[in-house]
Amino acid sequence: MTRLLYSLCGGDAECRFSPHVWKTVMSLSHKGLDFQEVPTPFTAIKSVEGGFSQTVPILNDNGHLVRDSFDIAVYLEDQYPNMPTLFDGDGGRAISRAIEGYAQFIIQPALVRIVVKDIHDLLAPADQAYFRSSREARLGRTLEAVESAAGEELAAFPAKLEPVRHTLKFQQYLGGDSPLFADYILFGALQWARVVSPKPILPADGPIRDWFERCLDLHDGRGRRMKAAA
Amino acid sequence: MTRLLYSLCGGDAECRFSPHVWKTVMSLSHKGLDFQEVPTPFTAIKSVEGGFSQTVPILNDNGHLVRDSFDIAVYLEDQYPNMPTLFDGDGGRAISRAIEGYAQFIIQPALVRIVVKDIHDLLAPADQAYFRSSREARLGRTLEAVESAAGEELAAFPAKLEPVRHTLKFQQYLGGDSPLFADYILFGALQWARVVSPKPILPADGPIRDWFERCLDLHDGRGRRMKAAA
Repeated sequence: MTRLLYSLCGGDAECRFSPHVWKTVMSLSHKGLDFQEVPTPFTAIKSVEGGFSQTVPILNDNGHLVRDSFDIAVYLEDQYPNMPTLFDGDGGRAISRAIEGYAQFIIQPALVRIVVKDIHDLLAPADQAYFRSSREARLGRTLEAVESAAGEELAAFPAKLEPVRHTLKFQQYLGGDSPLFADYILFGALQWARVVSPKPILPADGPIRDWFERCLDLHDGRGRRMKAAA
Repeated sequence: MTRLLYSLCGGDAECRFSPHVWKTVMSLSHKGLDFQEVPTPFTAIKSVEGGFSQTVPILNDNGHLVRDSFDIAVYLEDQYPNMPTLFDGDGGRAISRAIEGYAQFIIQPALVRIVVKDIHDLLAPADQAYFRSSREARLGRTLEAVESAAGEELAAFPAKLEPVRHTLKFQQYLGGDSPLFADYILFGALQWARVVSPKPILPADGPIRDWFERCLDLHDGRGRRMKAAA
C-alpha cells in the first residue's frame, strides 16, 4: 500500500504552505487514511507522475491518480464511504462548491495581496524567479508594490470573513457540530497565511480565531504541527 | 387548515419585496404546501399575531408560529419530512448557514446601497418616514447621498457574485442538479432587487442570469409572477 500526496514546499522542504494541499491533508486525515507527503517545489510540479497535473495537490492512491482538492475530496468520499464523511449528504457536497467559490474569489484574492511577498521570500532561488514573474503578471504590479498596500488589505479583511462569523453564531463548524470539507476549504486558506506570513491576519480572539484553533487541533494537531511563520 | 405567511408590502399591497419573505415563499412552494400571503406594511409588522416578531417572515402554520426564514426552513424540513427536501442532508443544512452569511454580509449590503432609494419610493407615506429615518441612521447618510453612489456599487457588484459564478461551472443550482434552500437564500436577495429597482443589477446573460431565470420559473413561475420594477 502506498498513498502519496505531492505537496508544495518552500526552500525549506518542511515548509508546506499550499492552501489546496492543506485541504487534502485535512481530508485524508479526516478519513483516517495514512499517506506520505512528497515535498515538491513549484518548478518540479510539472514533472511529477509523468506530468499528470500543472498544480498540486496530486494524490496517488495505490496507483490511482487524482488532482484538484475538491475532486480528491469527492474521490475519497466515494472510495471510502465507510470512513467519516466529508460532505454529510448530497446537499453538503453541492453547497461545498459555493464555499470553494467564496474561498477562491473573496478570501484568497485578499490574502494573496497580503502575503505574496512573504511567500516569495521563503522560496528557493529558482522558484523565486518563477514565482515573481508569474505573480507580477497576474497582479499587474511588482511584489514590492503589492506589499506596500498590504496594510490596507489587512484592514479590509475582517469584513470579508463576516459570512463565517455569522455561521459560527449557530454552530461550532461550517459543517455543523463537527468539521466537514467546507471547513477544510476555509482552513486551507488561513493555514496558508499562517505558514507563510507573520502578519496578524486573524484577530487574536473571537469566534473565528476559536474556530481556527479548533481546526489546528483536529486529527492529532495535524495543522498545528506545521510551524507558523515568525 | 390555514397557513398564513405575513409578507412585507409596499404602498401597492401587491408589491412583495422582502428578500427574507421570498426565501419562505420559495421554501413553502418547494415543499408543495398551500399558503396565504398576508400583505403587511413595515409599520404593521409589530402588531401581527400579538406582536410575535419585529420582522417578517412570520409563518402561522395551523396555529404554530415560526419567525425567521432559516428557522422556518428548518421547521418545514422537520415538520414535512416526506415532501421535497430543502437541505438534502445534515451537511447541506449546516453549510446553508454560510450561504446565509454570504447573502447577508456580502451581497445584501451591496444591494442595499444600490436600491435603498428605490425601496423608499415605492412605500406608502407612513412607511416612508419610518424607512427613511431607520435606514439613514443605519447607513450614516441620506438616502439621496447613498443613491448618488449607487453607480459605483453597481460596477463593483459582479465581483461579489464570483463565488456563485464559480459554483455554476459545476452544477445547475447551488443545491446541485435541483434547487435547495441555499438557492432560495440567494434568490431572495436578487428577487428583492428585481422587484424594487429598475437598475440592471444582473448581467443580461451568462450563468448567473441563466440560474436566476431558472429560479423565476420554479414552482409554476411563483417568482416570475411578481412584477419586476420598471
